Amino acid sequence: MNLQNDLLLRAARGEEVERTPVWMMRQAGRILAEYRAVREKAGSFIQLATTPELAAEVTIQPVDLLGVDAAIIFSDILVVPEGMGLPYEMVEQRGPVFPRTVRTSADLDQLRVADPEGDLGYVLEAIRIVKRDLNGRVPLIGFAGAPFTIFCYMTEGKGSKTFSVAKKLLYTDPEFSHALLQKITDSTIAYLKAQVIAGADLVQIFDSWAGILSPDQYRTYSLPYIKQICDAINEVPVTVFAKGAFFARQEIGELNCQVVGLDWNMDAAESRQLIPNKTLQGNLDPCVLYATYDQIRAEVKKMVDTFGTQRYIANLGHGVYPDTDPDKVRCFIEAVKEFSAK
Amino acid sequence: MNLQNDLLLRAARGEEVERTPVWMMRQAGRILAEYRAVREKAGSFIQLATTPELAAEVTIQPVDLLGVDAAIIFSDILVVPEGMGLPYEMVEQRGPVFPRTVRTSADLDQLRVADPEGDLGYVLEAIRIVKRDLNGRVPLIGFAGAPFTIFCYMTEGKGSKTFSVAKKLLYTDPEFSHALLQKITDSTIAYLKAQVIAGADLVQIFDSWAGILSPDQYRTYSLPYIKQICDAINEVPVTVFAKGAFFARQEIGELNCQVVGLDWNMDAAESRQLIPNKTLQGNLDPCVLYATYDQIRAEVKKMVDTFGTQRYIANLGHGVYPDTDPDKVRCFIEAVKEFSAK
Repeated sequence: MNLQNDLLLRAARGEEVERTPVWMMRQAGRILAEYRAVREKAGSFIQLATTPELAAEVTIQPVDLLGVDAAIIFSDILVVPEGMGLPYEMVEQRGPVFPRTVRTSADLDQLRVADPEGDLGYVLEAIRIVKRDLNGRVPLIGFAGAPFTIFCYMTEGKGSKTFSVAKKLLYTDPEFSHALLQKITDSTIAYLKAQVIAGADLVQIFDSWAGILSPDQYRTYSLPYIKQICDAINEVPVTVFAKGAFFARQEIGELNCQVVGLDWNMDAAESRQLIPNKTLQGNLDPCVLYATYDQIRAEVKKMVDTFGTQRYIANLGHGVYPDTDPDKVRCFIEAVKEFSAK
Repeated sequence: MNLQNDLLLRAARGEEVERTPVWMMRQAGRILAEYRAVREKAGSFIQLATTPELAAEVTIQPVDLLGVDAAIIFSDILVVPEGMGLPYEMVEQRGPVFPRTVRTSADLDQLRVADPEGDLGYVLEAIRIVKRDLNGRVPLIGFAGAPFTIFCYMTEGKGSKTFSVAKKLLYTDPEFSHALLQKITDSTIAYLKAQVIAGADLVQIFDSWAGILSPDQYRTYSLPYIKQICDAINEVPVTVFAKGAFFARQEIGELNCQVVGLDWNMDAAESRQLIPNKTLQGNLDPCVLYATYDQIRAEVKKMVDTFGTQRYIANLGHGVYPDTDPDKVRCFIEAVKEFSAK
């Protein structure tokens, strides 16, 4: 199907665009009253994520309500471990918790490589519904966590500031660590390929915990697995967003991906220098959306002026914070459109 | 009093040393059974920190038990807000909590510039006891939080992954933010000067939450206040450790300080280039101490080889994690001494 608005894909492929495309990480989420209503109807976050009709509904909401140039499938990076046989719970005010963790080869042997249609069919079904209902208005982004980030949760069992249990395993049992990372990678590749077949027009890899590794550890335990994914997905553009991995920008820029996501610590001009041949995505501090309309417009203008309007996808440097006023979000999106128009 | 071991101070001042000095952030703490015994006797963390004899006792423990080249006064960065009139509690498993927060000019008006002898005399008394009991064996490090990091806790009221309440204030009320930062800075300068008079041989400024700011915000809301402190403390060397502020290394290196602390994300060679004229301190990943003795020695050798033995103070890139085996810590310290000896 031809897309009516393919700005995101053209920008990702490095083609000329008449203005910069814009979307927001976590745009389908708690900032929208319409999302909260569906979330309440679903009963829980996990119910919402595993009910294709409802997941599809909240995926499309920001296209209608905020005017973004792409939808991103409503899901969670932790569905991959779930699909591998390691269930998790979402605890209010606390985040995800894995009742069982994976810390030994024996634990690992009990897990399978996720079968996308069998284990994660609900996400694929949601993608198919979204594609049908979007009817070509904007592209749909699929996604998965980077293997190292998924490894962190599977070994630690919950969120953590330091993920010291996860990192300890890298030092004490590198063989196990690589084996688990490989199984996650195999699952992720199969899952992303299935997302593309189901209709995803671009896929993004989130390495949310990249920033806890030293440059050496990152080269050993994260980059090679992201590389495998990038090399395996050739049908659609791939975005790599490694939060906190400022030190690996150059190497990420050399991967077989089309777009590199930046967090708000990463200077635009310096990042352009380090990553000369890719489209960049980012990177407004989400807290800017707490400011006045005038301040938001001024910050967006500065951002667009620094990145330039081409080879660029405007976004925040992290997911939008749940208490952000949707009108401020609209101001951000409109400002990108205005200041980047030819 | 002449110091028997002044390696730390000579390295800080850029003088030649026969080997690299080594100490560890959080060396006086839960890794040591001897610390835990005193902590239990005190009843609570805050009791321990506010009882000079006990604080002095745990300050000296790592000098005897681990063989470090410096003591660092056992205290907490949050004693400064406490001294300004904003008390806090330390909640087990959760960290510090301020029952009252500071978010308006009216809140701020109720706070005073801390009077070191009156409001924080217990820390100064602990310093005097440590100096007496150390009897010149090694130097004593004093410290304070950077104003922005203290601002985060005073406004947010507790720890946070994003400190979005604190950051929101920077955007919505810059005037209030600067006023609060200035009051914290004034308190901190008076406090550090009093620490030096009481006997601190070097002072370190911890900007633990530097990494949540964009480069622009850091230049506006953190650096100028650290600069005021560096300019005010001329009697002893000053170390600035801004965790996560990789983007500001060059500017920190241009401050009126003698030592720049690095976290484990920051590449040694690149940091030397960005900060050519200062002593560097850091930056082993604390998780390396979970590895085998052989691995620890190999990582320490690599670190010392990369930094070089001069203009360098060996440390971890963050505080030692509480579940680290003290024998592994000793291995780290011995390895620095061995590999850096002439």
